[in-house]
Amino acid sequence: MADKKKLVEAITSREEDFAQWYTDVVVKAELVAYSTIKGCTILKPAGYAIWENIMHELDARFKATGVENVAMPMFIPESLLQKEKDHVEGFAPEVAWVTMGGGEVLPERLCVRPTSETLFCELYKNIIESYRDLPKCYNQWCSVVRWEKTTRPFLRTTEFWWQEGHTAHATEEEAEARTVQMLNVYADFCEEILAIPVIKGQKTDKEKFAGANSTYTIEAMMHDGKALQSGTSHNFGDGFAQAFGIQFSDKENKLQYVHQTSWGMSTRIIGALIMVHGDDSGLVLPPRIAPTQVMIIPIAQHKEGVLEKASELKEQLAAAGLRVKVDETDKNPGWKFSEQEMRGIPLRVEIGPKDIEAGQAVIVRRDNREKQVVALDQLAEAVKAALEQEQADMLERAREFLYSHIYEAKTYEAFCDLIANKPGFVKAEWCGDQACELKIKEDTTATSRCMPFVQEHIGETCVCCGKPAKKLVYWGKAY
Amino acid sequence: MADKKKLVEAITSREEDFAQWYTDVVVKAELVAYSTIKGCTILKPAGYAIWENIMHELDARFKATGVENVAMPMFIPESLLQKEKDHVEGFAPEVAWVTMGGGEVLPERLCVRPTSETLFCELYKNIIESYRDLPKCYNQWCSVVRWEKTTRPFLRTTEFWWQEGHTAHATEEEAEARTVQMLNVYADFCEEILAIPVIKGQKTDKEKFAGANSTYTIEAMMHDGKALQSGTSHNFGDGFAQAFGIQFSDKENKLQYVHQTSWGMSTRIIGALIMVHGDDSGLVLPPRIAPTQVMIIPIAQHKEGVLEKASELKEQLAAAGLRVKVDETDKNPGWKFSEQEMRGIPLRVEIGPKDIEAGQAVIVRRDNREKQVVALDQLAEAVKAALEQEQADMLERAREFLYSHIYEAKTYEAFCDLIANKPGFVKAEWCGDQACELKIKEDTTATSRCMPFVQEHIGETCVCCGKPAKKLVYWGKAY
Repeated sequence: MADKKKLVEAITSREEDFAQWYTDVVVKAELVAYSTIKGCTILKPAGYAIWENIMHELDARFKATGVENVAMPMFIPESLLQKEKDHVEGFAPEVAWVTMGGGEVLPERLCVRPTSETLFCELYKNIIESYRDLPKCYNQWCSVVRWEKTTRPFLRTTEFWWQEGHTAHATEEEAEARTVQMLNVYADFCEEILAIPVIKGQKTDKEKFAGANSTYTIEAMMHDGKALQSGTSHNFGDGFAQAFGIQFSDKENKLQYVHQTSWGMSTRIIGALIMVHGDDSGLVLPPRIAPTQVMIIPIAQHKEGVLEKASELKEQLAAAGLRVKVDETDKNPGWKFSEQEMRGIPLRVEIGPKDIEAGQAVIVRRDNREKQVVALDQLAEAVKAALEQEQADMLERAREFLYSHIYEAKTYEAFCDLIANKPGFVKAEWCGDQACELKIKEDTTATSRCMPFVQEHIGETCVCCGKPAKKLVYWGKAY
Repeated sequence: MADKKKLVEAITSREEDFAQWYTDVVVKAELVAYSTIKGCTILKPAGYAIWENIMHELDARFKATGVENVAMPMFIPESLLQKEKDHVEGFAPEVAWVTMGGGEVLPERLCVRPTSETLFCELYKNIIESYRDLPKCYNQWCSVVRWEKTTRPFLRTTEFWWQEGHTAHATEEEAEARTVQMLNVYADFCEEILAIPVIKGQKTDKEKFAGANSTYTIEAMMHDGKALQSGTSHNFGDGFAQAFGIQFSDKENKLQYVHQTSWGMSTRIIGALIMVHGDDSGLVLPPRIAPTQVMIIPIAQHKEGVLEKASELKEQLAAAGLRVKVDETDKNPGWKFSEQEMRGIPLRVEIGPKDIEAGQAVIVRRDNREKQVVALDQLAEAVKAALEQEQADMLERAREFLYSHIYEAKTYEAFCDLIANKPGFVKAEWCGDQACELKIKEDTTATSRCMPFVQEHIGETCVCCGKPAKKLVYWGKAY
């Protein structure tokens, strides 16, 4: 087992240095490679396959709510980006500019989309005329570019992959309902598929999207207690519609502005997947999102019949609808175990000559290493049951971690102490004043994560300034 | 039926002006919208849904051959693009350059990828060390940018969507086999799914990809007799490997250069789909690729029970695995028929009060307008059978059109006459000299489409110069 030790030694432990552990895992599990372009990473097959599964699952959920996919240009002319004041202020400083094309200097420079509100507004202006054309619920899967100074794989990269939904509605109420609906799609997806529990709430004005009336967010807690904003849904009211002139004639033939929303989830969520579930042996993927759910590892594979049996079991499990592979490489079994664990494959099946003789196999869960000896003729059911239990246990464990790391603060002293010494979120009342958010950030580096939809009442005064409290807020350090 | 007339009048007939017919169809069938960015079109839901089905189908075929998907950066540093001489000469004139990012002038300008050979080479150089790491068979789905002076939706746009596969192999033979294998994947996909028959062959040196040893192509024939290059597969030999230093140690521990291939199919193929099958009423989509296969159109839908029956039939057909919709809008049936035809939906089901009373429905094929009265309890089987027959008939019709528009020329006079007067391809012998290709292009605007894999021998001398013939070539005007 010397090899196994060597592979595991290749990653730093979480307690020693969480940031280094993260970097080690994304590289050793072969999720990404670095490119020579500053801040741009490559998604390798193991990383991209996770994103493919996320796209597949989310896309079906979007379509079930009536969303249609489109593809928009990757460029935005400077004049178009400038049409909505808050929006351009929010994004202009971090965009990449194309200034030459086809050997000539362009008459107007084009930015590479950092997000596509302006392009969708232009399209909607052209294709919406009457109430019959509403609602429009479009989405696109693409990559966007935001020039970043410091970058980390998945969490913050100059180019990243995402989906951006953009909708237009006849009424304020309908837009608000869609904004909430899509946030719930994200939250349900995170819990049901990624086994990541989230806090749903509204961003403060300081933290909301550039140009939005309101931004709703789901916040997940990483193993180090930091928050990761995992999906957002914005209600724009008719602000963009006014800036772009997107009007429709209603049933009384009167011109009205549309009400718009946008909502997005990105490859950032893979960072959450790693930091919520991973352990000191590497990645741990929930079975429902894992590209490979089961790795069959033959023991003493040179012996007669072992590889044949492994391949037979693979066919059996694949026929039962599982994503399964056999590791037939010439590495030793200990090394193969380590690799399967490093890559977060949820279950392994060990099968050797003695097992075959006894008509059994050993199955081992990735999350808790629980072993089970299973009769070969019941393998498929046993594997399915183990994977379902693993998925449920992972969510339960993550929930327990989340809720046991949420604290309450009623005084500023207690608040600062908690933020400094207790990894996790702190609930505290807030007066609604941005000055308090700024002071808290300066004193503690924590930011307001959200005003949760489920509002409790834990005090009368703002934890920071002592003025009357308006909202309960979750605070925390964040990625 | 006044409305119907109006909708159909909105498109020019193919005989009158094929180019205008094409533009009318892409707009009226709502496949694309124009953006304000020069040469960039928007894929609207109806257009993008076709591309989604193409991606889905091709991706499964790629994966069945062992291909893995990745995502690469959209930018290429200028120095990286320049590493392979022919390649940079081929692409540098038509790229878009990013010169500023995050408010600063970049130290080195980045081009937006026109294709990603150079990025894959850089990655392969970093991750390939030994023969154990081979082959690498990566693919990505993305958009690329080539600055175009004149553009047409799907056929030639500044930004377009595609997949690009890039592989690295230990031997020349393996690379050659992969090049041919992927061309066959494309050809089979075109015939089986898109009902587009193709000619498989090799490009001449003049027409091959910048940096390739050899380029294989599939050429389809549009309704106006012009060729459309529909997919290409390139064998690079070890040229890129030498330029980028991609080496591996073989089983004898000797350093060797890898052999590489690349292959791509793009949204251009949707142009072929339109121009092979479309007619004067609009788009005609083969059932296997159509996003909606069946449109149920209620007749006298205000009458009791009609909409209920339509929706019941929809459930029934959906349960049988069909992609089906009901047109419940308040337009009149004639208008709905025209829209369904314009959009190329392969089959419509008409259901009205009299049909319901008689326990039947009328089904109408899009391609030949064949009507059939079907008992409601046999609707699903009848619809399935009609769609299968439609798919087969469309391929057969396209095949007949292709082969009846291929001519032979043995003299240059006959050749020029055929190119000028007979829409289609002309088979003729060629000496292998580029001067003849240039002369033919200048005299006739036709280009060499390919040297078909199936070589016939129809003469001893080059049709252009009279020198000894080396290859039979298909010539034609092209998109």
